[in-house]
Amino acid sequence: MKLEKDAPILIVGLGLMGGSYAIALKKKGYTVGALTKERDSVEYALEQGIIDYGGTEPTAELVGSAGLVIFALYPRVFVEWIERYQHLLRPGAVLTDVTGVKTAIVYTVQAMLRPDLEFIAAHPMTGREVYGVRNSTDRSFPDANYIVTPTDRNSEEAVALAKELGRELGFARVSVLSPEAHDEVIAFVSQLAHCIAITLMTCNELERLEDYTGNSFRDLTRIAHINEEMWSELFLLNREALLREMDLFSAQFARLRTSLAEGDLAAMKEIMRRSTARRDLFDEVKPAEPEESKSC
Amino acid sequence: MKLEKDAPILIVGLGLMGGSYAIALKKKGYTVGALTKERDSVEYALEQGIIDYGGTEPTAELVGSAGLVIFALYPRVFVEWIERYQHLLRPGAVLTDVTGVKTAIVYTVQAMLRPDLEFIAAHPMTGREVYGVRNSTDRSFPDANYIVTPTDRNSEEAVALAKELGRELGFARVSVLSPEAHDEVIAFVSQLAHCIAITLMTCNELERLEDYTGNSFRDLTRIAHINEEMWSELFLLNREALLREMDLFSAQFARLRTSLAEGDLAAMKEIMRRSTARRDLFDEVKPAEPEESKSC
Repeated sequence: MKLEKDAPILIVGLGLMGGSYAIALKKKGYTVGALTKERDSVEYALEQGIIDYGGTEPTAELVGSAGLVIFALYPRVFVEWIERYQHLLRPGAVLTDVTGVKTAIVYTVQAMLRPDLEFIAAHPMTGREVYGVRNSTDRSFPDANYIVTPTDRNSEEAVALAKELGRELGFARVSVLSPEAHDEVIAFVSQLAHCIAITLMTCNELERLEDYTGNSFRDLTRIAHINEEMWSELFLLNREALLREMDLFSAQFARLRTSLAEGDLAAMKEIMRRSTARRDLFDEVKPAEPEESKSC
Repeated sequence: MKLEKDAPILIVGLGLMGGSYAIALKKKGYTVGALTKERDSVEYALEQGIIDYGGTEPTAELVGSAGLVIFALYPRVFVEWIERYQHLLRPGAVLTDVTGVKTAIVYTVQAMLRPDLEFIAAHPMTGREVYGVRNSTDRSFPDANYIVTPTDRNSEEAVALAKELGRELGFARVSVLSPEAHDEVIAFVSQLAHCIAITLMTCNELERLEDYTGNSFRDLTRIAHINEEMWSELFLLNREALLREMDLFSAQFARLRTSLAEGDLAAMKEIMRRSTARRDLFDEVKPAEPEESKSC
């Protein structure tokens, strides 16, 4: 099982992420098809040359020729699609996805799947605050991580294929995690981050904030422009892990508050030192050392 | 009272911000001097041509010629400097600063200042996670806000001068707030944002996070690389306002947690919609409308 240039790859759901995959795969010379609800998106993608063929109806003709099918749908829409249309898929086809939560999806899909199909889940950790195929781009892939989340039901070949797809798409790093480990990490680095940004954006009524904000606040709240349909679904599908991370965050925030209220400079500095040390792991180029005189 | 090209501007404290001011002012043709602790910083700045003269000792010769003196020091170091060296300043000199908190500093300095000097406070809302004159740049100024914070003791002329300085430095927007209003805004958009970033960075012990993070997490925690000496001082100098903002944040975070725990989709979506609407005020170019099929 390998990614073949002559077997078409079908993308189901031609939104921002589906479109971005199409762009990246076309550049590498793959034949790319698309199935999506909006006629307009298909026409746009054909005009732009980011797909080779496409349609808005799940027909045997459109769906049955693909060896690899990539689902770029909302989680529940994805599960419904499998229920209703998996009979159209070619025997031996491999399915993958881009869904942001795994435990709640992967086992469900694998359990309902025809035995002659295989679903290997993956999560491209990239996104933007804009929507739709017209905003598609593969520019962010070389800075982003791609996580493959196999289960006991997956073959080694399918895992290898998913990893190869991540590399062909141009992601900076391709890793493998269990669905459970993925969801724990995602609850922290993605979902909690979004919870914080939307809380920050809605926690007071100060007016004309936009006149007085620095870049740190803009960075911190970039993701506060949020698609409420998708994210409320993702939060609920990963509720237990996210609640755990929210509670860890709240407990540490309370510790910082106490140290400030008590004027405990040593405790505040200790939290800040740990923060700096841990944040440094994220940057390849380390900032220079502090000097004496500077401002904020 | 106007910014004069032939009267030298003295920068006290040639760190990241002092150096960045020097770069911007030299570009505009001003004569720029510097007083700073590190001999090395003076030599570097002279070599790079970002100052015209400089020294490490507060002498009448170095300090006494400037009509405008910009203090780019830690808050307490700034106050100490005024106590010890204000006798060196030229009669009629105007003093300004870059300090990130105002109420705790402005009134103190104004109360101790010689009657023939005037201190008009200002806050350039920009910063980086790096330090020192070698990292100085005025690149971020055109994206940042500059806030002048006058009191009853300030003359209209000095306020006008401070605003002119903000414009000459190239800031995107120059505004005027009372020290108290500034500190309330800053407690929210800057200090609370830093509290959140360092809490996020220290609230759990997940390993190898850096392998699995998306760009949102990196953006959210960019400021988690923090100078603990400066920020613990700034937090304490604005303690009451910051505690109020921390409590507003905690209360709203708890509401979001409850809506998730109870599976209250409507409440979650409502918070997200308000977040998106408010965040949109920060962006001049609005993102496109959502479509049907997309992933995260």
